[in-house]
Amino acid sequence: MIALHIDRAGPEAAYRQVYRQLRAAILAGELAPGTRLPSSRTLASETGVARITIAHAMKQLAAEGFIESRTGAGTFVAADLPLAGATHGEPFRPMLTSWGQRALATHQATGRTSSAQRPEIDFGFGRSFAGSFPYDIWRQLLGRYLSTDDAMLSRYGSTAGFYPLREAIADYLARSRGVRCVAEDVAIVSGAQQALDILARMLINPGDEVLVESPGYRDAFALFRLYQARLVGVAADDHGLPVDDIPVDCRARLAFVTPSHQFPRGGTMPLARRQALLAWGRERAAVIIEDDYDGDLRYEGGSLAALQGLDDDGRVVYLGTFSKVLFPALRLGYLVLPRALNRPFVQAKDLVDRGASTLTQAAVADFLTEGHFERHLRRLRRLYGEKRRVLVGALDSYLGDRVRYSTVAAGLHVMLFPTTHLDEARLVDEAAARGVRVYAGASFYLEKPAPPSILLGFSGLDEAEIIEGVRRLADAWPL
Amino acid sequence: MIALHIDRAGPEAAYRQVYRQLRAAILAGELAPGTRLPSSRTLASETGVARITIAHAMKQLAAEGFIESRTGAGTFVAADLPLAGATHGEPFRPMLTSWGQRALATHQATGRTSSAQRPEIDFGFGRSFAGSFPYDIWRQLLGRYLSTDDAMLSRYGSTAGFYPLREAIADYLARSRGVRCVAEDVAIVSGAQQALDILARMLINPGDEVLVESPGYRDAFALFRLYQARLVGVAADDHGLPVDDIPVDCRARLAFVTPSHQFPRGGTMPLARRQALLAWGRERAAVIIEDDYDGDLRYEGGSLAALQGLDDDGRVVYLGTFSKVLFPALRLGYLVLPRALNRPFVQAKDLVDRGASTLTQAAVADFLTEGHFERHLRRLRRLYGEKRRVLVGALDSYLGDRVRYSTVAAGLHVMLFPTTHLDEARLVDEAAARGVRVYAGASFYLEKPAPPSILLGFSGLDEAEIIEGVRRLADAWPL
Repeated sequence: MIALHIDRAGPEAAYRQVYRQLRAAILAGELAPGTRLPSSRTLASETGVARITIAHAMKQLAAEGFIESRTGAGTFVAADLPLAGATHGEPFRPMLTSWGQRALATHQATGRTSSAQRPEIDFGFGRSFAGSFPYDIWRQLLGRYLSTDDAMLSRYGSTAGFYPLREAIADYLARSRGVRCVAEDVAIVSGAQQALDILARMLINPGDEVLVESPGYRDAFALFRLYQARLVGVAADDHGLPVDDIPVDCRARLAFVTPSHQFPRGGTMPLARRQALLAWGRERAAVIIEDDYDGDLRYEGGSLAALQGLDDDGRVVYLGTFSKVLFPALRLGYLVLPRALNRPFVQAKDLVDRGASTLTQAAVADFLTEGHFERHLRRLRRLYGEKRRVLVGALDSYLGDRVRYSTVAAGLHVMLFPTTHLDEARLVDEAAARGVRVYAGASFYLEKPAPPSILLGFSGLDEAEIIEGVRRLADAWPL
Repeated sequence: MIALHIDRAGPEAAYRQVYRQLRAAILAGELAPGTRLPSSRTLASETGVARITIAHAMKQLAAEGFIESRTGAGTFVAADLPLAGATHGEPFRPMLTSWGQRALATHQATGRTSSAQRPEIDFGFGRSFAGSFPYDIWRQLLGRYLSTDDAMLSRYGSTAGFYPLREAIADYLARSRGVRCVAEDVAIVSGAQQALDILARMLINPGDEVLVESPGYRDAFALFRLYQARLVGVAADDHGLPVDDIPVDCRARLAFVTPSHQFPRGGTMPLARRQALLAWGRERAAVIIEDDYDGDLRYEGGSLAALQGLDDDGRVVYLGTFSKVLFPALRLGYLVLPRALNRPFVQAKDLVDRGASTLTQAAVADFLTEGHFERHLRRLRRLYGEKRRVLVGALDSYLGDRVRYSTVAAGLHVMLFPTTHLDEARLVDEAAARGVRVYAGASFYLEKPAPPSILLGFSGLDEAEIIEGVRRLADAWPL
């Protein structure tokens, strides 16, 4: 009635094979509902496996309801299986909410598809330089917890984050970024994007205005739009957001800014503007999100103190990340929350995603408190500072006054503005034809059409690649 | 005019101390806007630090806009600082969205506060047993990537997850859970909660009905309610969700079920019910989320095949997690998505949270493909199976017919139902007074008041603790 084929060489246990083949035959209708099955003795001898193997498979099929024993009468394919050879024309297409539809549409719009061909020299940004991280120390720190502290691994972590890490971050931020906070104000997240996603849900009602810089962080734009925010963009200049340019009729109760190092344009917001922004926030009863995505990586002078440190009202939410200074694969970021937002945030986080890996958090905490972090940071500043110097030199030699850009005082990329007319999409293609990938700046702008600009990240390349990349870019650049 | 105190023994660089103290004096108004500062030579000799240290601090203060140089006239506190001794009465209280308010309220309702006193014996559930995990192997696998494969750490991972892990999961699920999928159908998340949060946003419109089991997974209830779902609960019996009991007027287009092992009641949904549930879904054009939170941990017979494997339409979303079998601190879960939901999910995930740690994913992938996972699973089944046997024995001896419960054929906990009247809150208190923490089942029920029940997790305790815990619980239990 049905031939079973047992593969004794394969990894699958014999009883699983019997089970699977009988199940498939039942589901396919080859063994119809109500059919009497041969005895396990018969099946065993026909198949050449032990009777207990057949019995084991039968038990499983019975547990799942495919077959049933009737005392004294034998074993039967279950009679009440509503199987139906059911070929249901087209596959099911669930209806998405408007949120789901927006999510689907957003991604297509930003067009972050990876091109098939891998370029020789990729000026991608936000990468850390392979080889720069002290893996030996990291391995040691992880090893500590992997061998001795089971309890930390066997429980779910706290939603707000592993306390010693929150302490270490508060201490570091107070000391080196001028952030005023204690451990309780710090919450650990998987990255800035998760922080923004939760904040957006907490703070944006459909149709609300949100104040942003243009050009700006497009992933934040996409997220705010997902919650139907209306973005009010103010054109950033060499000193970040010009607060005086905020439209007087702007009704935003939320602003998203990058005062330490305007993203992606470059430039630092001076104190007077910071004070003015805080005053604007006070007038508007607005929350201000300060994204300090690379404030650590400043090459000239120390890092600039955070906007958060000037905030007396508790309206600034400070975002930081370890992806740039440690490595992206860590997936750890943090926020410093004002008291009024702390509990709502942590409780929302608890509902939508449990804590980050305790193991990783513990290792990062030690990395911070034992001084490895600041040592590594100093090394990175030297390393990236040298790359930056090489990049600026190459830009001067090869592109000269065909481009202008803000002083590269911090960060891992530079945004170039052509001094004469430029078709940026065409330049990107021309560079690609020369094996160099550079990035069009248009998608970082709210205004359409955007002023042409090109983004070069330099953190993932070595010095020879930077020079050669800029040389080829200049070759592609119209005179 | 202002005395600077330099601590040479501390960890803070001298220039940072100068910078910080001058900044504080300016912010506090002790150095008024427009005040002329002493020359760096004077400050250096007064403070006893090198002149370059003062110059360094000054440069930083100038960069931040606190001070300004006027050629030939010296250095001044910036004139345009809108500092204002501003004591703003009460701290700022941002307005939360209704979502934010619901998040805040939800947490209070479930009351998951940790009591101050740590009990001697804690029947908490969802824990893995410390000591059972092969840390040596895990350390080895992590070490592989920590030392040799920088590229994996230095880039952001793919949103859908690390491909080799998706392959390994697809292979494992097809082989051992009867899930029909390929690697492309698998998406990696930080856990079931994140998966549900994204699915809820994609699929639930405010006011929509969602079909759930009662008792059921209360964290899913909370999440669905956060998106203003109206939960339609069907009372689970010893065989999971009785599909015939779904109200005929139920208009849900989404169902959340635990067919392998009903949570938290226990019991497995037989095939006929599974087929009926799929038929119901077809009729209603509904998506069915199958949460297979512990389907791996079955003690009798093999694991039951997943509902997903019976789905011909592409309406079942399968959720799995590594938290139970590996360890909670990993924070890795996965979904198998039908084609129609795959792209919307991954694109939404990309907007709200980037991928999980590539390092962890790579190590888990190797753990799976090299056979460690299934070996560990077999060990756990023996280990937990033995604990379960001890628990059932203790329940029989000490509580006897005062309780009933579903056969503990799988999982890490048991839900006890008293056979006579019981005040569950009081019992929890009485047990706590005896050093034993047990969990009231009420919060898992939709109906209020819920039938009294008590949850005991046994995975985090050793056998002596289980016996002693049940003995004391029986002592607290009214006769």
